[in-house]
Amino acid sequence: MPQFLNAADPDFEPRFAALLGAKREDSPDVDAVVAGIIADVRARGDAAVIELTAKFDRLELTPETLAFSQKEIDAYCAQVTDTDRAALELAADRIRAYHARQMPEDQSWTDPSGATLGWRWTPVSAAGLYVPGGLASYPSSVLMNAIPAKVAGVERLAIVVPTPDGVANPLVLLAARLAGVDEVYRIGGAQAVAALAYGTETIAPVDKITGPGNAFVAAAKRRVFGKVGIDMIAGPSEILVIADKDNNPDWIALDLLSQAEHDESAQSVLITDNAEFGSAVAEAVDKRLETLERRAIAGPSWRDFGAVITVSDLTQAATLSNRMAPEHLELCVADPDALARDITHAGAIFLGQYTPEAIGDYVGGPNHVLPTARSARFSSGLSVMDFVKRTTLSKMTPDALRAIGPAAETLAISESLEAHGLSVRARLDALNE
Amino acid sequence: MPQFLNAADPDFEPRFAALLGAKREDSPDVDAVVAGIIADVRARGDAAVIELTAKFDRLELTPETLAFSQKEIDAYCAQVTDTDRAALELAADRIRAYHARQMPEDQSWTDPSGATLGWRWTPVSAAGLYVPGGLASYPSSVLMNAIPAKVAGVERLAIVVPTPDGVANPLVLLAARLAGVDEVYRIGGAQAVAALAYGTETIAPVDKITGPGNAFVAAAKRRVFGKVGIDMIAGPSEILVIADKDNNPDWIALDLLSQAEHDESAQSVLITDNAEFGSAVAEAVDKRLETLERRAIAGPSWRDFGAVITVSDLTQAATLSNRMAPEHLELCVADPDALARDITHAGAIFLGQYTPEAIGDYVGGPNHVLPTARSARFSSGLSVMDFVKRTTLSKMTPDALRAIGPAAETLAISESLEAHGLSVRARLDALNE
Repeated sequence: MPQFLNAADPDFEPRFAALLGAKREDSPDVDAVVAGIIADVRARGDAAVIELTAKFDRLELTPETLAFSQKEIDAYCAQVTDTDRAALELAADRIRAYHARQMPEDQSWTDPSGATLGWRWTPVSAAGLYVPGGLASYPSSVLMNAIPAKVAGVERLAIVVPTPDGVANPLVLLAARLAGVDEVYRIGGAQAVAALAYGTETIAPVDKITGPGNAFVAAAKRRVFGKVGIDMIAGPSEILVIADKDNNPDWIALDLLSQAEHDESAQSVLITDNAEFGSAVAEAVDKRLETLERRAIAGPSWRDFGAVITVSDLTQAATLSNRMAPEHLELCVADPDALARDITHAGAIFLGQYTPEAIGDYVGGPNHVLPTARSARFSSGLSVMDFVKRTTLSKMTPDALRAIGPAAETLAISESLEAHGLSVRARLDALNE
Repeated sequence: MPQFLNAADPDFEPRFAALLGAKREDSPDVDAVVAGIIADVRARGDAAVIELTAKFDRLELTPETLAFSQKEIDAYCAQVTDTDRAALELAADRIRAYHARQMPEDQSWTDPSGATLGWRWTPVSAAGLYVPGGLASYPSSVLMNAIPAKVAGVERLAIVVPTPDGVANPLVLLAARLAGVDEVYRIGGAQAVAALAYGTETIAPVDKITGPGNAFVAAAKRRVFGKVGIDMIAGPSEILVIADKDNNPDWIALDLLSQAEHDESAQSVLITDNAEFGSAVAEAVDKRLETLERRAIAGPSWRDFGAVITVSDLTQAATLSNRMAPEHLELCVADPDALARDITHAGAIFLGQYTPEAIGDYVGGPNHVLPTARSARFSSGLSVMDFVKRTTLSKMTPDALRAIGPAAETLAISESLEAHGLSVRARLDALNE
């Protein structure tokens, strides 16, 4: 049974704090193992990757078969049904259209001193995308990671996806093709991250690695950070639904369950201003759990981390939501736009009763890679911005240097950085001759 | 003596690769010590911070004196000379004007399906800024970190700055005041990072921590990453100057030395299309090193990591520069704007002979916190973007859900996520009734 909280109860504050602080993630300490794997790949390249793939994925590869050939990809893509292909194409088109608007603009201007200032954005040259294998091999995640990279202008985009026992997901390969991925390697785990970061004889190194993965992949990404860029380290998924009584309890129940079915550590929370509605939703969840395919996952998630919170009004709901900083936030209320204006921290907001969170997972357009574990307080979902970087530009004229150079010299001297000051002074003296 | 390389020499490629790969940073493994300090601060709060400050900074504090009072700050600010104050104000004004243009814009639009999509930017609520104490206590760094945060709209901005033996830098406190910093604590090291990340009885926790620091501070930032956001982990500074023969060798020498004087691990490289000019610059460096105040630092840096590279033309210079992805890049050539267009990876570019890099350290306007160690391949300097985060928005109408909902359902089923599919299907069925 999930927790039932009421914001008016005297013990609400400690219980809500406990809900926020619940340690949902079981992170095994795999760091030593991962360090060994990375060192091995750095030292022995392809040979290490091939050995580790034989060991962990029961798959014998050669340098020539590390990557899928175009012919193999053709064959896998041909297995996809027309319905699935059309759905994936619709998703890819919508994701591309949304992300195209994220491309930031260069700027350049001349300030009153005569200095020209500005900045310029350029894409990362090469990026690598980790795609989990097996059960959690999601073609939608391929689109969500690869499309922003290609929209940004990344020239070389490589995917690594483990294929245990040689089994590959045709939809993943089709998604890679639709997104314009350049290379697909059938490797996974820390060895794949190491190969992308440091390169091997066959796999050229990349500059940035994104994508979800298990504890080994997460530890490897942390270790190679600095050598390459990485995206966030994602934790278990979470959803907060704020709903008033004028909703169908079954719809809200399904929205809560669509997070819960991801992972036993996922968290689904309902905040409502109507206690009876809250009970009705909880009943609807229980009913759906009787038959849901993934009830063995969704049930424990809802029981251990789920919550139904009753508040006095929607202002209080927004306050609690901001303290949670949820990854996904549904606003199923009469005026969702008004309520959204009170939200200061959330990864993605879904407005109104016709926007179930699942729309955002696939076809809405915004990215589904979002900050988890309250990190929406300080970070954003994946976007084109993750695949570009900014170079600042400044150009002084003699007049500009005369105007602002002396202040630079003064500050350099105050910081005991003599050469800094002299580099300005030498030019000023020449200009004043 | 620095290295002299010529791109036409047969051994150029391995030597250039060695230059790129030179391990300049000596990172002592302080992780275990730092883990202990963080655990101690989490467990004992103020008491731990106070004990560690007594131990490392020889300073006895109480919870009441952890922060500088406004009166103390007034007194320190009053010690600053009018010249220094005016220089700092000019710097603050220019940095603020530059960063104000970085504020990203919200977007909202309705797509052909009738769905309303968009995103909204919001500031991080509370940020903490680490300011090193002692010799490397730079007021300019306070401005460069604090102003973007305040421009972004960060409501609460706290500084931690160690004051060994109780000695504080008046310019640092004035910079904090000019930048609008809200709280200044006289603590440092891993204990200060832990206090900002987890909070103590006296210090409220923040959401994001930025700013440079020693190996202990860097290790602490890595450890608290996830609980809070952090900026990059900065390595030793570096500059690349591309200069043709029509430059004053002494000016270029001073620019190279203004990086070298930061740190024995700093790297200064000149690329020129004229070997004689390269020799003249090297001679000018040697001459300046005879008298430079910080020659004991700049000398070893130039000798161990400096280089003069001769190339056949500026196109080759740009190619080598892009492989280096330098933190600072000066283009002292006849047409610096044209050359800048060939640059794909660099933290900051300084165009023309009247723009010494030191201008950018203090008064240019762009940020001086920039990606080091070739990380300009995938990351950018500090900016307003580091203190805001994006929330994506989507709102379906019944028609929009009818148009794109079935594709979401199809993909959910293909990924075996039944509740995802049902959350869409339940709504579609109701709409079709």
